[in-house]
Amino acid sequence: MAHHLITGGAGFVSVNLIEVLLARGHAVTALDNYSRGSPRHLDRFAATGRVALEKIDCSDLEAFLAGARAVHHRTPIDEVWHLAANSDIPAGVADPRIDFRDTFLTTFNTLLVMRDLAIPALRFASSSAIYGDFRQTLIHEDVGPLAPISNYGAMKLASEAQIRAAVEAYLPRADIFRFPNVVGAPATHGVILDLARKLAATPDRLDVLGDGTQQKLYLHAHDLVAAMLHIADHAQGRYNVFNIGPPDDGVTVRAIAESVRDRISPRAVLHFGVGDRGWVGDVPRFRYSIERLAALGWRPALSSREAVGRAVEEIAAQEGL
Amino acid sequence: MAHHLITGGAGFVSVNLIEVLLARGHAVTALDNYSRGSPRHLDRFAATGRVALEKIDCSDLEAFLAGARAVHHRTPIDEVWHLAANSDIPAGVADPRIDFRDTFLTTFNTLLVMRDLAIPALRFASSSAIYGDFRQTLIHEDVGPLAPISNYGAMKLASEAQIRAAVEAYLPRADIFRFPNVVGAPATHGVILDLARKLAATPDRLDVLGDGTQQKLYLHAHDLVAAMLHIADHAQGRYNVFNIGPPDDGVTVRAIAESVRDRISPRAVLHFGVGDRGWVGDVPRFRYSIERLAALGWRPALSSREAVGRAVEEIAAQEGL
Repeated sequence: MAHHLITGGAGFVSVNLIEVLLARGHAVTALDNYSRGSPRHLDRFAATGRVALEKIDCSDLEAFLAGARAVHHRTPIDEVWHLAANSDIPAGVADPRIDFRDTFLTTFNTLLVMRDLAIPALRFASSSAIYGDFRQTLIHEDVGPLAPISNYGAMKLASEAQIRAAVEAYLPRADIFRFPNVVGAPATHGVILDLARKLAATPDRLDVLGDGTQQKLYLHAHDLVAAMLHIADHAQGRYNVFNIGPPDDGVTVRAIAESVRDRISPRAVLHFGVGDRGWVGDVPRFRYSIERLAALGWRPALSSREAVGRAVEEIAAQEGL
Repeated sequence: MAHHLITGGAGFVSVNLIEVLLARGHAVTALDNYSRGSPRHLDRFAATGRVALEKIDCSDLEAFLAGARAVHHRTPIDEVWHLAANSDIPAGVADPRIDFRDTFLTTFNTLLVMRDLAIPALRFASSSAIYGDFRQTLIHEDVGPLAPISNYGAMKLASEAQIRAAVEAYLPRADIFRFPNVVGAPATHGVILDLARKLAATPDRLDVLGDGTQQKLYLHAHDLVAAMLHIADHAQGRYNVFNIGPPDDGVTVRAIAESVRDRISPRAVLHFGVGDRGWVGDVPRFRYSIERLAALGWRPALSSREAVGRAVEEIAAQEGL
């Protein structure tokens, strides 16, 4: 049994992670500022007595350090999962201070806290957005040049860089997980939730950002959690970087919109916008190599299409639709 | 004639840049917090009437924005040279907040100021430190993976990433200059100045960090300035990344120490330390491609050895030795 500290601990990915960590017998302390995460997401774990939740904004170093020290003093923290980040990419393009604070500063502070408490292992939720737009080039972990086109991607890359330097100086181990869109429940953001809520409001009509040809990779949260734990268990280096993605080239926004419509309001007419980018900083299509992870012995269970299909069901249920 | 705003404008590289900008007929506003730069570095330009200097710490957004707005209101700023940064890499390893504030936050704020004032061109002093340790692999601009091993390198990479995203969203043009050690006068830091001052204090003995086998690239400030201006004049893209370096594999710390000794105190005995890294985060040796810059029509005038030789003379004169 180990004690895991999770930043952004009441968010979408964290809830799925905590489920598995508890099943493995671990204890969890979740920190969250409730910007998107919600304390009620963790209610289901209350009976275990092995999950603590604290309202802390990890971009506030003083509060984060004080909170983490108190937690560590009661039960030493064995590893940190840094999952806190801004998840609204367009908002971050409009105001760069959002990703600066929520995506980068939280990482910077996490490292200061880990150094202060000598916590030996960091697991970090990075992103395919660090790569920028490689068009038809297959993206493996060592490609260059890295040219993120959103502030979100820039601040994830900045986070990776700072973690890499920390491993050189004092941090014994860091795992970097680079993943594309993740879907599942409890959804707090994302295209499926957006479309479902639009349809709930206007059951006859569904407006879609862009022309619907954007094709993206979707990973189910269950696959993401399984992959992260597989890497944490099996990767041997002190600094391990892995792409995590579905074993395919993704699905189009049109296909997602049709899935949501078919499930929630079959009579709705789809209306598409113009252009193949939903917003500035949106990478329309890319080819993702997951060979490194396959070589470590793990492959995702669901394709992009299957992940979307399952998530549509989960999110419709979540929204009571 | 154009109006150039330079952050870190009273520092070592800036003084060399301003000299050439003035010779070309331009006007300059220099911002500096005088952490290493000094207002007296710019005294020599006073007679031109085309250099203004303001004491502003660019990590303080409010002060930077207010100062830049006032400057821009009097004479519109045509381009920004962002040269402010921490230049003490070991200090940044000991306390990550130094590079966070002086190397990254200054960049982040520069971009906010440029967006606020709609200034169309940014020239950025990046670093070979963004690459990390590639050992014998030739480092061209598109290599991967980028794995900086110092906080300085991490925060330069973070800066590049944020600039790249800004070009996607609103900034018309950015030039990224990646360079290794730069030498010349007025020296404010660096191995030659350190060794010269040690010898001035103890003329019989010179203690050198590391075992003397570290081999590094040294670019003379005159070559750096000429290269940056050549890129600004001739590169065609909206986002241009160039390595700038000497046309060789560098010189050893032992050779530098011998040059300094021979010039300043020939009787001194050299004492070397242990290991091939002067400090944590020090990249001992690397091979640097400057082919992209050569293809643009420019090559440095001085080799590493020649740059060091000239800088030893300049720094000895500067120190009155």
